[in-house]
Amino acid sequence: MTLYILNGPNLNRLGRREPGIYGHTTLAEIETWCREAAGSTPVEFRQSNYEGQIVDWIHEAIDNGAKAILINPAGLTFTSVPIMDALKMFPGPIIEFHISNVHRREAVYHKSLMSPVVTAVMAGLGPRGYIHAVRALTEMAG
Amino acid sequence: MTLYILNGPNLNRLGRREPGIYGHTTLAEIETWCREAAGSTPVEFRQSNYEGQIVDWIHEAIDNGAKAILINPAGLTFTSVPIMDALKMFPGPIIEFHISNVHRREAVYHKSLMSPVVTAVMAGLGPRGYIHAVRALTEMAG
Amino acid sequence: MTLYILNGPNLNRLGRREPGIYGHTTLAEIETWCREAAGSTPVEFRQSNYEGQIVDWIHEAIDNGAKAILINPAGLTFTSVPIMDALKMFPGPIIEFHISNVHRREAVYHKSLMSPVVTAVMAGLGPRGYIHAVRALTEMAG
Amino acid sequence: MTLYILNGPNLNRLGRREPGIYGHTTLAEIETWCREAAGSTPVEFRQSNYEGQIVDWIHEAIDNGAKAILINPAGLTFTSVPIMDALKMFPGPIIEFHISNVHRREAVYHKSLMSPVVTAVMAGLGPRGYIHAVRALTEMAG
Amino acid sequence: MTLYILNGPNLNRLGRREPGIYGHTTLAEIETWCREAAGSTPVEFRQSNYEGQIVDWIHEAIDNGAKAILINPAGLTFTSVPIMDALKMFPGPIIEFHISNVHRREAVYHKSLMSPVVTAVMAGLGPRGYIHAVRALTEMAG
Amino acid sequence: MTLYILNGPNLNRLGRREPGIYGHTTLAEIETWCREAAGSTPVEFRQSNYEGQIVDWIHEAIDNGAKAILINPAGLTFTSVPIMDALKMFPGPIIEFHISNVHRREAVYHKSLMSPVVTAVMAGLGPRGYIHAVRALTEMAG
Amino acid sequence: MTLYILNGPNLNRLGRREPGIYGHTTLAEIETWCREAAGSTPVEFRQSNYEGQIVDWIHEAIDNGAKAILINPAGLTFTSVPIMDALKMFPGPIIEFHISNVHRREAVYHKSLMSPVVTAVMAGLGPRGYIHAVRALTEMAG
Amino acid sequence: MTLYILNGPNLNRLGRREPGIYGHTTLAEIETWCREAAGSTPVEFRQSNYEGQIVDWIHEAIDNGAKAILINPAGLTFTSVPIMDALKMFPGPIIEFHISNVHRREAVYHKSLMSPVVTAVMAGLGPRGYIHAVRALTEMAG
Amino acid sequence: MTLYILNGPNLNRLGRREPGIYGHTTLAEIETWCREAAGSTPVEFRQSNYEGQIVDWIHEAIDNGAKAILINPAGLTFTSVPIMDALKMFPGPIIEFHISNVHRREAVYHKSLMSPVVTAVMAGLGPRGYIHAVRALTEMAG
Amino acid sequence: MTLYILNGPNLNRLGRREPGIYGHTTLAEIETWCREAAGSTPVEFRQSNYEGQIVDWIHEAIDNGAKAILINPAGLTFTSVPIMDALKMFPGPIIEFHISNVHRREAVYHKSLMSPVVTAVMAGLGPRGYIHAVRALTEMAG
Amino acid sequence: MTLYILNGPNLNRLGRREPGIYGHTTLAEIETWCREAAGSTPVEFRQSNYEGQIVDWIHEAIDNGAKAILINPAGLTFTSVPIMDALKMFPGPIIEFHISNVHRREAVYHKSLMSPVVTAVMAGLGPRGYIHAVRALTEMAG
Amino acid sequence: MTLYILNGPNLNRLGRREPGIYGHTTLAEIETWCREAAGSTPVEFRQSNYEGQIVDWIHEAIDNGAKAILINPAGLTFTSVPIMDALKMFPGPIIEFHISNVHRREAVYHKSLMSPVVTAVMAGLGPRGYIHAVRALTEMAG
Repeated sequence: MTLYILNGPNLNRLGRREPGIYGHTTLAEIETWCREAAGSTPVEFRQSNYEGQIVDWIHEAIDNGAKAILINPAGLTFTSVPIMDALKMFPGPIIEFHISNVHRREAVYHKSLMSPVVTAVMAGLGPRGYIHAVRALTEMAG
Repeated sequence: MTLYILNGPNLNRLGRREPGIYGHTTLAEIETWCREAAGSTPVEFRQSNYEGQIVDWIHEAIDNGAKAILINPAGLTFTSVPIMDALKMFPGPIIEFHISNVHRREAVYHKSLMSPVVTAVMAGLGPRGYIHAVRALTEMAG
Repeated sequence: MTLYILNGPNLNRLGRREPGIYGHTTLAEIETWCREAAGSTPVEFRQSNYEGQIVDWIHEAIDNGAKAILINPAGLTFTSVPIMDALKMFPGPIIEFHISNVHRREAVYHKSLMSPVVTAVMAGLGPRGYIHAVRALTEMAG
Repeated sequence: MTLYILNGPNLNRLGRREPGIYGHTTLAEIETWCREAAGSTPVEFRQSNYEGQIVDWIHEAIDNGAKAILINPAGLTFTSVPIMDALKMFPGPIIEFHISNVHRREAVYHKSLMSPVVTAVMAGLGPRGYIHAVRALTEMAG
Repeated sequence: MTLYILNGPNLNRLGRREPGIYGHTTLAEIETWCREAAGSTPVEFRQSNYEGQIVDWIHEAIDNGAKAILINPAGLTFTSVPIMDALKMFPGPIIEFHISNVHRREAVYHKSLMSPVVTAVMAGLGPRGYIHAVRALTEMAG
Repeated sequence: MTLYILNGPNLNRLGRREPGIYGHTTLAEIETWCREAAGSTPVEFRQSNYEGQIVDWIHEAIDNGAKAILINPAGLTFTSVPIMDALKMFPGPIIEFHISNVHRREAVYHKSLMSPVVTAVMAGLGPRGYIHAVRALTEMAG
Repeated sequence: MTLYILNGPNLNRLGRREPGIYGHTTLAEIETWCREAAGSTPVEFRQSNYEGQIVDWIHEAIDNGAKAILINPAGLTFTSVPIMDALKMFPGPIIEFHISNVHRREAVYHKSLMSPVVTAVMAGLGPRGYIHAVRALTEMAG
Repeated sequence: MTLYILNGPNLNRLGRREPGIYGHTTLAEIETWCREAAGSTPVEFRQSNYEGQIVDWIHEAIDNGAKAILINPAGLTFTSVPIMDALKMFPGPIIEFHISNVHRREAVYHKSLMSPVVTAVMAGLGPRGYIHAVRALTEMAG
Repeated sequence: MTLYILNGPNLNRLGRREPGIYGHTTLAEIETWCREAAGSTPVEFRQSNYEGQIVDWIHEAIDNGAKAILINPAGLTFTSVPIMDALKMFPGPIIEFHISNVHRREAVYHKSLMSPVVTAVMAGLGPRGYIHAVRALTEMAG
Repeated sequence: MTLYILNGPNLNRLGRREPGIYGHTTLAEIETWCREAAGSTPVEFRQSNYEGQIVDWIHEAIDNGAKAILINPAGLTFTSVPIMDALKMFPGPIIEFHISNVHRREAVYHKSLMSPVVTAVMAGLGPRGYIHAVRALTEMAG
Repeated sequence: MTLYILNGPNLNRLGRREPGIYGHTTLAEIETWCREAAGSTPVEFRQSNYEGQIVDWIHEAIDNGAKAILINPAGLTFTSVPIMDALKMFPGPIIEFHISNVHRREAVYHKSLMSPVVTAVMAGLGPRGYIHAVRALTEMAG
Repeated sequence: MTLYILNGPNLNRLGRREPGIYGHTTLAEIETWCREAAGSTPVEFRQSNYEGQIVDWIHEAIDNGAKAILINPAGLTFTSVPIMDALKMFPGPIIEFHISNVHRREAVYHKSLMSPVVTAVMAGLGPRGYIHAVRALTEMAG
């Protein structure tokens, strides 16, 4: 009954990428926070710059009977129908997560393809928002 | 250092309003949860069907030096420039909150006027999502 | 088993407002016609310039187990998601009514937010159209 | 001083066509109701699947000095400029009538070409709505 | 023969609201300037955060035979068909006034519903622009 | 080597149809003028309210090796892909003709489907414009 | 248990119409191919330039309990709500067929009104594509 | 009682400019044809690449009490509000003329600013179309 | 420290141009009013039908260290990026002025290119509005 | 002279993915059917969740002189310009294939980037539609 | 075999115009660089604020058999169909050049009318980019 | 201080891909030219059909302190937010390069996601344009 936390392109640069928008926290620190917040629930925490890889991981989550998915698809949020299609197949709760408030940014970041197929959306809570998302997802999937 | 929790039109009907979408929880129950989640932080929990009233309450929050605002503007989310203008004046963190995932609903619920002026957005976590929002807001305003 | 007849902003000016478009009949005369047309059915006939007030009255209609709602939301027809949300909660038949044929007027009057959530729409029958609407609604709710 | 009641494509299938939307009433029953509602006014009740035929009938109504036209253009409502042009030439009152509330259906049924050139519009009252339309039209043309 | 000066939502915060855009002048100071500029013409100077209240005041201006209306509808400029409808009924000159140049701001502030029904529009002259508007209006209504 | 002059819906009403726009000339008078203007060239002058009939006549013109087509598709100008498709098959010159200047009228009359497939367009010259069109077409086909 | 094959405007010109796009095959040859492909299934193979006629034939197919419909609505594909409405009433499988790949052509040919109400769409297979469509439809209706 | 014939940018290149679209006729030849077609009516035949110059010439035509204007605004057709404004002031008939059928060309040539303010439009008749335009205009202004 | 007052195309026709919209005042009268309103401030009052000329004059204003610019770009308001670019370079206050309320006119007059780069906008005050604009500008530049 | 059959993201889940839409057939069964339908023509049957991999395979098909391509790009249909660019380079016939009728689904599935560059499109025939596509493609490439 | 370098409105202000965007280089310095970069090729280097003048110069370039055109149309890039039409007539290579990266600026600078008719586009290289453009153009025209 | 030159999907086919548009030069020849143009600056010249790979290489360029990036994202130009996000993180100058003038091609190639985040854009100079881009970039980064 694992929790999958999937991160999309450029999030491996967190802490170094546009710190004015994303802050100085690294993805490794976030992983630590998430594992703590998840408590006894096992966590698969992944990052990839490849759309195909993320589709594969969602398939894996389905096959492994994962409890829930927390996904930050980053730039693919706005362009990937394949990831949207894969998420549709997952039977449990899904939270779409964005570190920054995407609605305050340029128009290209305003129209998420994922939002209509996920359970919930959280945006703008900063890196520590992952902790709240993990808690909410754990509760929903409980 | 109060936390204002402001609820817009029709939310006084919660528990009776389209339970397929909003569930059976009442606003009174949510208020109780929010006060618990806020701990020692004082909470002003309000609801109104009048846009002007909500504008007045945001002014009050500013005048009282409120710590943060959690706002669920309900139907006014998509139509009220006056509320948007009032939120712009608040110096602290603001979370825009929706019980349902508005992006799964009809197009009229897709374009929030508030999102570009708030700190963060949370949608689709259900009534208990208020708890997570209060916790996140308390942390951000801490 | 009351019939609620709710009138929106500026309809209190009927008879004096743009008579070229709305005629010289006053709202009081219309109220008289409606009560006659309703026969033994009790009628609540109201007018307000406040969106919040109209939302409250729809809630009241629900709580009182009203038989049907005849609503002329006037200018709020095109702008009020809160009234649309409130109408969705009403279990009985609803007629959206406009004195003039809104489709012959400026573009701002063409796109009703209410039409997709009401039972029926009538527009352009003039002030006496209220009579036909009351009769149709009584029959539908019968 | 005849009343013309013109019905467009597929309405000859009424009672058999998508009964979930249109009910089980047939066009023959509606014709009976209309004749009763019209009282002593003679009624021409027609149906055609051909746009050209309906244009011809509107011309006939003009030549015969008809009192009023009740038209349910069905699918041609959204596509026929020739019928719109013909209706413009008719000097008396015209009601555009739809059995279902077209605004609750797919987008292709939302933009009537006829509405800006008719006197009044009625939609969503079901098959018995024809009766109310005939009465309103008789009164308007009286 | 009074001059009505009506101010919409959030203008009671003037001087404290986004001073980078609106300056430090308060609404009370503006009222003083307006009364001086109006000379012997009586002035009704009002502010409300409620759309319905502003509609009521426009009705009052009509009933009192007011000479002219100077209106700064603030956020309601872009959303209120009821106020637009009420202004249409006023027989004298109307100036729509905005302190900032709304065309330099975000897109949500670009499309005024009021402009097509008023006599004149002034925007961007700052708080002291009220003085010029009162003078122009006095001259037009003279 | 015949010249086909094809007239669409409602043009049989010419002289009686909206004389403020179309004048008092009848289609019979226009036919006379066209035959004179065509000189020795044989003329087929037709009118129909049926799209299918007009398609058939264009086929006939092709089969008869007609010299040119002068077509006033009236309301079908803006809606008939079948007529557009038929005109594409005609090898000779085609003039699309409108009595009124359609660009001065409502938006529904602004976008001709025919214009991109015809040789030339003439609009707004009034009923006598047919004469100039016949002359121009005769010269082009000469 | 007949198979209806309905062809829209201008398809009677096949072989002569824009052979660069449609080839030199005639509709008669296609009819022969279809009958062969259908094997023992009776085939009604029709063509008309009249929208109303095609609506009538779809009604006939319903009344005769036809097995399936193969329809090439040609230019009416993009404009006929009445044919779309009629197809909705047919309970069996429907294939929408186009000889050319309409998506390679001008924009007016890109948005089919029929596609959302049919079972399947085939476009661009050329005249012999009718054979494949008949086979697929026979199998689906089997 | 002069006829003004005004030609816009690049028409001085006629005969050398994209002969596939405009042919080999020069503007001087067209001038000769126009003078012949105008008979005894004096003709002012002008060309300029400057928008301001064309505006000046329209003013001159008004001041001289010109009989009619034939204008081929070329590229300025689609961009010049000043020329549109100037044409509005001319009290006599105006024909907007284009040598090619602009509707067959790129989208930038489809939306004329002039068409809604002129009397008639002619496009696609080639260089000799000027002759027909002069004749029609002479007749209209007669 | 001069005030530049620049007027665009067709304003030299004022008094003769569409008096129903612009009144009978001439530009010479307006110039006199402006000089009076400006008091001791020197005024450069210009008019041109050439976009390039107006760009040159704005450059001149910059080079001469002008105090402020009052510009009525007339038809160029909606089409001239070069004038917009030139105004951006001017360091002092600029008022964009329109005699009529452009928002009450056709859609082509609704979208000013200048408004986002000027200090303030005034429209609909009639010819005497120039006086108020000069006064406001003098005060702003003072 | 091989036939390439390329399948895009998530099609490896066939049989398990949204069976209400796609059925219970697996991709392995489809591969078997395709090989049978292709007869003696060698078949390369592939699936990938990576856009780049599919681009590589199209290059391989070109280099190997493949006879034809049958491609079901799944979610990449609507988003991949690189696959569209690669298909443009293939000299032989291409069929774009979709198991479901994409036009009956959400809007995001309506606009294929591939359709304008392929030979033919087939959608909605279900899993067994692959058989008809292979047959049609074999015939076209024959 | 001359190289024409044509500069549009406001470029005579270079060095003084919005230096944050355009830098401090003057047009005279750029002319010097261009002549050096062109080597032995004669250069006509021009600037005008008048659209008509630029059209004339393009005609001159054609008549003189110029080798190539380097054009920076500045604000006219986005509005001038006459310049676009003139460029279409030039038989040699054309580079459209912009000092700043127009795609980083406001939306009004995003849609060039020239780009679809020129050979190449260069934007954002700063003033020294002229040198690279001259070299590339010389090579292309060589 | 390396220069990264990154090439997107299908560019490995250069010389064989649509030579009418791209010419016969291969990517290997371009690499040779680029290395020569770069002189002593080390060059990393790469090509990939995978979006994720290109994102990785941009990260590598950042980590290696690369001097500048020359990127031809090919089909990903119009679809990849992840590449756009990665380029935003690069601190040095970036040139977006296209061999063909994308603005002359189909609409799908008109809206680059990259242009608003790069330093400069060059398009339409053909394969040898890489040389000019390398020179310009070397100068900018110098």
